[in-house]
Amino acid sequence: MLNFIEGGVCAAQGFRAAGIHMGVKSRKTTKKDVALIVSDVECAAAAVFTRNAVKAAPIHVDREHLKNGKAKAIIVNSGNANACAPQGEENARRMCAAAAKAVGCDVEDVLVSSTGVIGQRINVELIEEGIPALAAMLEASPAASAAAAEAIMTTDTVKKEIAVETMVGGKKVVMGGIAKGSGMIHPNMGTMLCFLTTDCAISPEMIRTALLETVNMSFNRISVDGDTSTNDSCIVLANGKAGNPVITEKGEDYDAFLKALQALCVQLAREMASDGEGAKHLITCTVKGAKSELSAETISKSVICSTLTKAAIFGTDANWGRVLCAMGYSGEDFDPDKVDVHFTSAAGDIMVCEQGRGVNFDEDLAKKILTEHDVEINITMGEGEGSCTCWGCDITYEYIRINGDYRT
Amino acid sequence: MLNFIEGGVCAAQGFRAAGIHMGVKSRKTTKKDVALIVSDVECAAAAVFTRNAVKAAPIHVDREHLKNGKAKAIIVNSGNANACAPQGEENARRMCAAAAKAVGCDVEDVLVSSTGVIGQRINVELIEEGIPALAAMLEASPAASAAAAEAIMTTDTVKKEIAVETMVGGKKVVMGGIAKGSGMIHPNMGTMLCFLTTDCAISPEMIRTALLETVNMSFNRISVDGDTSTNDSCIVLANGKAGNPVITEKGEDYDAFLKALQALCVQLAREMASDGEGAKHLITCTVKGAKSELSAETISKSVICSTLTKAAIFGTDANWGRVLCAMGYSGEDFDPDKVDVHFTSAAGDIMVCEQGRGVNFDEDLAKKILTEHDVEINITMGEGEGSCTCWGCDITYEYIRINGDYRT
Repeated sequence: MLNFIEGGVCAAQGFRAAGIHMGVKSRKTTKKDVALIVSDVECAAAAVFTRNAVKAAPIHVDREHLKNGKAKAIIVNSGNANACAPQGEENARRMCAAAAKAVGCDVEDVLVSSTGVIGQRINVELIEEGIPALAAMLEASPAASAAAAEAIMTTDTVKKEIAVETMVGGKKVVMGGIAKGSGMIHPNMGTMLCFLTTDCAISPEMIRTALLETVNMSFNRISVDGDTSTNDSCIVLANGKAGNPVITEKGEDYDAFLKALQALCVQLAREMASDGEGAKHLITCTVKGAKSELSAETISKSVICSTLTKAAIFGTDANWGRVLCAMGYSGEDFDPDKVDVHFTSAAGDIMVCEQGRGVNFDEDLAKKILTEHDVEINITMGEGEGSCTCWGCDITYEYIRINGDYRT
Repeated sequence: MLNFIEGGVCAAQGFRAAGIHMGVKSRKTTKKDVALIVSDVECAAAAVFTRNAVKAAPIHVDREHLKNGKAKAIIVNSGNANACAPQGEENARRMCAAAAKAVGCDVEDVLVSSTGVIGQRINVELIEEGIPALAAMLEASPAASAAAAEAIMTTDTVKKEIAVETMVGGKKVVMGGIAKGSGMIHPNMGTMLCFLTTDCAISPEMIRTALLETVNMSFNRISVDGDTSTNDSCIVLANGKAGNPVITEKGEDYDAFLKALQALCVQLAREMASDGEGAKHLITCTVKGAKSELSAETISKSVICSTLTKAAIFGTDANWGRVLCAMGYSGEDFDPDKVDVHFTSAAGDIMVCEQGRGVNFDEDLAKKILTEHDVEINITMGEGEGSCTCWGCDITYEYIRINGDYRT
């Protein structure tokens, strides 16, 4: 059983959320910009953070707070990344302290995330002032999850939330999440934030293992390892309220939980890619017949991250030469003469390259296929059994506009 | 002595060139699209080719023809890359044979290059037909070099040619070149072609060594190692007509030759970066105080290739956070708290980040600085003695327009 359901980060038992406007965002807007997620009881907690050598202050604080594998609340702001900023760690700690006070828990049980402009001092006084009102609005409702999802958005055009239910150890287990995406243009992923909640009973070790296994096949397949922003964070809280036997090792229960978590995160990853800054297309690139899964992933990422391929899809131009070129500079060794490339969408499927050579194809049909929002690039290599799917988006005039004038 | 002079690829003694319109380019234009460069006598020859696993047919043929380290002529077309194309090698050989016949040399003494659309059969019959007329126009004049430089252009907006004279072994030695650049958007460098001629007397081994040393600190610093197109080629011919003692080992003569060759190629590299597709700015990024030169190069390239930094420069937005972010995901280990960043141009110099933290700066002055065509990002790291300069350009609406509709 695996059902997608409503409720986002509040779908699982015992979680409440809220999101309000405090004015952290530099532009004069009324947009929500601070979110709070709280569990009724202490949770097993885990996180995956950016591999960027320059890490935002909240990440250093979270690492400390996660040492015991436990947490109860997450406070998040958009509008300011609190990275390379004066008094960064001090202010991140102040955000945790204010949230801890408002929800009545230890400061070490609060995790903090930020996203927005780098290098400017965060207006922590404003946030401290607003947190009591934010905490007063905490609710276990779909509307509350939606408010939190809105509050973490920056250039996202739609909020991203999702939840699934499954059976683990004979009990119904629910998990949900909210996320914000980013410009999807390699090698600069804008900040990715994702907050996941579940009522599954699972040990801190196993939730950490499950999160790593999940991030590697979802969010890490919309970007490139190491090419991450200063603030990227994916945090999961598991409060055990589902009453299943606590998962403490790999096995059937772990697999059921992992399967649901992965389905959840793949869907969020697809939504992030689809909502890349200015994007008009979701591009799904599947490589089959590579030497290994890792080789397939490297090649698929190289295609997904190719600015020229992105531009061709934006122009609905079936320029498969750019796909081969991107495969070629991926660093993987392969025989180009065994490569087939198809473009596929709801409008049809067309082979554009066979055994490494161009084939005559119906340009009108190709155009129709590439005009769809969801476009697939399907590659077969004839090298082995490795396969992998990665996700990206096209690059558009809008992307340049957004990023040419982000701060002002 | 190191003087920049006129004449491009015809500046050195004993070289003639020509460029004409044959109709290889798919669009109906009268633009020149085939070039020929010929030395009066056999030359020591060397080349550096793309590291892309998918290599265009001419590269395979050139590798064969360069086995003896000798060549006499280069035939080049734009409009069709002859990569992943039916009868690729056969047609590349036919181009060499036609050129050899027209100029009266062995087919093995002819090198061939192509640039343009991937995957379509090259119209070799058209080229064979046109080569006698092309050969008839060979001339040792600046105008002939200019015609050849025009004929190899694709999306370049200006032709790129240059020449320098220097003293080697008591004799005046001249070298010159023509080049075509490319979209400068990492990780997809459009095809880079560069053809160099010199009257220096130098052995095939030493010209090869000099070319490698030069490419690594010029053209390879406008892109990223391994991120190359199917056709990238840099070829040098040295015919010995200057009468200097033949350079057969490293030493004073080699150093004098190398210095001139590097000055030549750095200037061509800057021109390529400056003429990146749709570019409005040349961005020069210098990293000082890195752990090593290689570390400085990796970090500088990461900044230069950052799409978000490119977009910020396009928007004249002093968003130095993106510079730090790009440094951070370069893979190099360093202490962000020791990094200073300056933006510099003819309009002034401004520190925007000190010891890893944002500083208050004059936004109006920053805007003025970034409005100039030539913009510098100057980074000091406090880690060691390594330094390096790399070149890139901004990303613009025009880039998207060009690359969204390249084939049609």
